[in-house]
Amino acid sequence: MNEAQLLRIIQEACPSPPAPQGIGDDCATITNHAYDYVLKVDSVIEQVHFTLDTPGELIGRKAICRVMSDFAAMGGAMPLAFLVSLTLSSRHEEALISSIYRGISQTLALFGGKLVGGETSHYKEIQTEPPTLFPLNISISGLASINSDRLVTRQGGNSGDAIFVTGELGHLLESQHHLTFEPRLKQAQWLANHSYASAMMDLSDGLAMDLPRLCQQSDCHYQLNLANIPCVAGSNTNQALSLGEDYELLFTVPSNLVDMMTKEWHQQFPKLRLSQIGELCSLDNPSSPELKGGWDCFN
Amino acid sequence: MNEAQLLRIIQEACPSPPAPQGIGDDCATITNHAYDYVLKVDSVIEQVHFTLDTPGELIGRKAICRVMSDFAAMGGAMPLAFLVSLTLSSRHEEALISSIYRGISQTLALFGGKLVGGETSHYKEIQTEPPTLFPLNISISGLASINSDRLVTRQGGNSGDAIFVTGELGHLLESQHHLTFEPRLKQAQWLANHSYASAMMDLSDGLAMDLPRLCQQSDCHYQLNLANIPCVAGSNTNQALSLGEDYELLFTVPSNLVDMMTKEWHQQFPKLRLSQIGELCSLDNPSSPELKGGWDCFN
Repeated sequence: MNEAQLLRIIQEACPSPPAPQGIGDDCATITNHAYDYVLKVDSVIEQVHFTLDTPGELIGRKAICRVMSDFAAMGGAMPLAFLVSLTLSSRHEEALISSIYRGISQTLALFGGKLVGGETSHYKEIQTEPPTLFPLNISISGLASINSDRLVTRQGGNSGDAIFVTGELGHLLESQHHLTFEPRLKQAQWLANHSYASAMMDLSDGLAMDLPRLCQQSDCHYQLNLANIPCVAGSNTNQALSLGEDYELLFTVPSNLVDMMTKEWHQQFPKLRLSQIGELCSLDNPSSPELKGGWDCFN
Repeated sequence: MNEAQLLRIIQEACPSPPAPQGIGDDCATITNHAYDYVLKVDSVIEQVHFTLDTPGELIGRKAICRVMSDFAAMGGAMPLAFLVSLTLSSRHEEALISSIYRGISQTLALFGGKLVGGETSHYKEIQTEPPTLFPLNISISGLASINSDRLVTRQGGNSGDAIFVTGELGHLLESQHHLTFEPRLKQAQWLANHSYASAMMDLSDGLAMDLPRLCQQSDCHYQLNLANIPCVAGSNTNQALSLGEDYELLFTVPSNLVDMMTKEWHQQFPKLRLSQIGELCSLDNPSSPELKGGWDCFN
């Protein structure tokens, strides 16, 4: 069972509206009393997303920032409230738990939103030899608000739109980027406020897996200029395509807005690289090059 | 580390406002654009809250109903949207996952609210002999709306208020009540709409653990009439006090409203037992009898 198969099982068992109200985008969207909200849940799990060597503050930071990055992806939704669900075992010590929550608290102070609640559960531990290492599991759910005319989904792209990515791609695990990245909330809010982005998502599973997802939701294919893909120093284009956890924005811009957007971007965000890596094309044309790889925790 | 100690660690690491905006009630509460919302996250974990012998539909039902029961506890908040975070291992099969989501979907159809999103993660599995059994972990986060003048917290009780519980207490694990219980949403809404309940919570860890929590938030002590505690057939008063997972409402009513409330209750809910089990008293008096026990997954 890979992630896509699992998603199909869930969709069959729980008929739900298509994104942006249901499954298929970075966050879910709801409207209540004429106000719009986005919702997200995301887990970080010991051995998958961090190890017990990782400083607790950075574990907490990562857990929150992954959700912030998804709020950014919807058009820079404004973080309101977060809940933390923690599952732990007896080998997870007070000092670690405390530092994780400090990291959560410090990160919320940086990017906005409040920790309003949560819960803690304990595994039922069975004595085995060697002892079973039940992993620490931190699940963060977040609520953010957005004006509906600022909402940017994966669906809004059109043939001819230019494809952009922020920053550089292909961060190696050793770089600790996955623990210290900055969610692109400000940039996403700026793009949404100026109506520059027709479609947007964050890059968490690698461009090779994520770009086809955006294209599928926008009913488009893509033409990539591989030479323009911004690689982190020390990584090659293949790594930039396939490594996950870059947490940069992938977005599309109507061709008539490209010049104005790029010029203003460099004034607004002079230190953050922006790369035009290709364009969306109609389904009549094949996507090129065909992308493979990317990160799937089920493989 | 027991649950109370863990909560103190979290509160120290994450300074947050007191309930109802922060830690200390069944749900967290936020206000946005002058509308009030309650938020809740809750996990059910294999071996702790269910086993793989449990039908998947009932696992899904339980996961949702635990959150619904907390929405009830806040004054019958109206369920809006739910997210499901699932962590699984390779031994958890498609048919099980599918039936859990069917249970979630069917339960939402009964009690309200929509499944709008979620995520799935896979444990990093290590080959051991015997194989490590990583538990299925289902974390549900829910958002509900409530009018602020209908919000009932644990804080509103006053000396002299009568203490009530719905239904019967002391369900044994074998009874499957923990899988099939009905969250008391309707009853809680009725109590809140008539301003009968001064304080309320749901009984998930046993009266012996939960009543002192309500009293602490209301700055009161309690006087219990043990003979009035409604025991499930086959359970005794000790079991009714100490067994968790009853999911009944515990609430307090100002003494001048008791007669009217109980009379109307029996008309509204003729089939659901209602028991007056004691009253709140001032901190000058000791709580009596002193309660011990209740369920703490950390012990």
